[in-house]
Amino acid sequence: MQVSAHYDTIRAVEWIGGGIKLLDQRLLPARCEYVECGDVASAAQAIVTMTVRGAPAIGICAAYAVVLAAHTRYKASPDTWRQDIEADLKLLAQTRPTAVNLFWALTRMRQKIAVTQGQPDAELLAEAQAIHAEDLAANYYMGDQGAALLEPDSKVLTHCNTGSLATGGYGTALGVIRSAYAAGKIAHVYAGETRPWLQGARLTTWELMREGIPVTLIADGAAAHLMSTGTLHWVIVGADRIAANGDMANKIGTYSLAVSARYHGVKFMAVAPSSSVDLGIGSGQDIVIEMRAPEEVLSLNGQTIAASGAQAWNPAFDVTPAGLIDVLVTEKGVVTQPNAEKIASMMHSSSA
Amino acid sequence: MQVSAHYDTIRAVEWIGGGIKLLDQRLLPARCEYVECGDVASAAQAIVTMTVRGAPAIGICAAYAVVLAAHTRYKASPDTWRQDIEADLKLLAQTRPTAVNLFWALTRMRQKIAVTQGQPDAELLAEAQAIHAEDLAANYYMGDQGAALLEPDSKVLTHCNTGSLATGGYGTALGVIRSAYAAGKIAHVYAGETRPWLQGARLTTWELMREGIPVTLIADGAAAHLMSTGTLHWVIVGADRIAANGDMANKIGTYSLAVSARYHGVKFMAVAPSSSVDLGIGSGQDIVIEMRAPEEVLSLNGQTIAASGAQAWNPAFDVTPAGLIDVLVTEKGVVTQPNAEKIASMMHSSSA
Repeated sequence: MQVSAHYDTIRAVEWIGGGIKLLDQRLLPARCEYVECGDVASAAQAIVTMTVRGAPAIGICAAYAVVLAAHTRYKASPDTWRQDIEADLKLLAQTRPTAVNLFWALTRMRQKIAVTQGQPDAELLAEAQAIHAEDLAANYYMGDQGAALLEPDSKVLTHCNTGSLATGGYGTALGVIRSAYAAGKIAHVYAGETRPWLQGARLTTWELMREGIPVTLIADGAAAHLMSTGTLHWVIVGADRIAANGDMANKIGTYSLAVSARYHGVKFMAVAPSSSVDLGIGSGQDIVIEMRAPEEVLSLNGQTIAASGAQAWNPAFDVTPAGLIDVLVTEKGVVTQPNAEKIASMMHSSSA
Repeated sequence: MQVSAHYDTIRAVEWIGGGIKLLDQRLLPARCEYVECGDVASAAQAIVTMTVRGAPAIGICAAYAVVLAAHTRYKASPDTWRQDIEADLKLLAQTRPTAVNLFWALTRMRQKIAVTQGQPDAELLAEAQAIHAEDLAANYYMGDQGAALLEPDSKVLTHCNTGSLATGGYGTALGVIRSAYAAGKIAHVYAGETRPWLQGARLTTWELMREGIPVTLIADGAAAHLMSTGTLHWVIVGADRIAANGDMANKIGTYSLAVSARYHGVKFMAVAPSSSVDLGIGSGQDIVIEMRAPEEVLSLNGQTIAASGAQAWNPAFDVTPAGLIDVLVTEKGVVTQPNAEKIASMMHSSSA
């Protein structure tokens, strides 16, 4: 994979001193604090609580968590650790259901567990670090591929956070935006605030402003109005799971943007590593959508915003059908108007 | 106008003891506090700061504010008060630009000012009270007319707040929902939270829960997903200004719902008194859209949520073209698939 020079960006997940160092994304942008996870339970909890979030970053964190688990299990029982660690893999698999990168990373680590000899730490750490490094390289490559699709002076809208904070360190949709900006193709970025968790307001504005990329925040409900009154060329988003037919789950609100984009003739690009593709799922309707706590909609930072006792419906993701996706960018290739045949062909090609 | 029996609801605007009593809508639902305005300046400020909000309620508040202004101007100079009060009318007209009910109420009060004799207090108060009473009666009537369009067991989505808090005392879209619920036709109400000001989260859940109407709050970005996965029959919203061709301005996010509703075959109903119709505006593109402070998007309930120094774009309204409106309900009639001819015919008919 040929990778052009890219400036360094912040890291959400790092392996340091025998543990996982996570930038606590619940506190940004007010505070930039790190959390250290020294065992699998605390890493699993960090995924559940969204201390770390973003499909690729969750996968990387889970891979490192397997290293921690293997160290403990092997030390406790060198003879049975391969059976014992299944409980840890199960714990990690139960943290969040929608993004497939988590399960993909666990499968890859399990395959390595099956073949490793003796004390497993070094070999498993090398595998987790490879997952991390490959994700970063994929991001750089997708950034260049996606940027090549944009015309100069493009105005783009993104949703949620798909940057360094969500990935191995550069970004999927935000990686394309970074690369396109570096290539002089971005006139302006609009970021949807992404209720209820406010990834757009809290994380995307923060990431882009650190690099001087011009960004304007909008309420999610203002996106269709922006499309009707302004000049918007692209909606560029990530994906948490892509089914075999090209349907994709992504952060709640993505589908609404896809419907509005099609209505207004604005192009829609999804950017995700091939680890987000799940050929075992036929279509979007089979993707499990995580339902999160109503409190995320009913309150903010512990402050209640709705009437006392109110109910809320809080799906964390929605499904955008392949028919509304103009371009899917992965590190295995660029697919226009994705369908089952094109997705299969892309996945069976060798990595670019 | 025949009005069926309706249960009493809370009042956002009242004339009490020679002044205007406003329920402070910035504090709801945490606190239920009232503000008293004894002069035109404080009433104008209450409109600007959204202590009182909702197109019909703003019109009613402005009418009462003219009574206060006339009292002061006449007392200061009985000979020139009709000229002097023009400054007060101008002050009120400059408070908010989009909802036409404000200008409609000021025009009606100006017409009364022109013909009143001697001390004007009683006659102007009677006119303001008539504006208030007519709005309430129109709400009751529209409630019944709109409810008649719903099938039993309907699931409906509303946006912003269009209830007692936004009107003379019953509601436009929420009036239809109240009447339909009373008639046993509502299975469930979904309320969009309506960022940035959270009228749906703060006000609509509060109003409906006070009356035991089943309501579930959703993030604005979840509406399209709700339409694709659940059974939703109607989107029912208010309108701040309806152009001669049927295009309408309403709270930001409405247009997105209209686009998604059409895409999913969900019906879209707008409910507003005829005072919201502006035959002087040909189409929606001529409606002035109020741009409000970026801070409303950059913060939530007073807490900063975006990166320090971030920019935001904060249009308070958007325009839904007539072609996306299935039914428009006013107190002058029910118009399906509104267009210029039907709107003109409705407005020239006598009140029902």
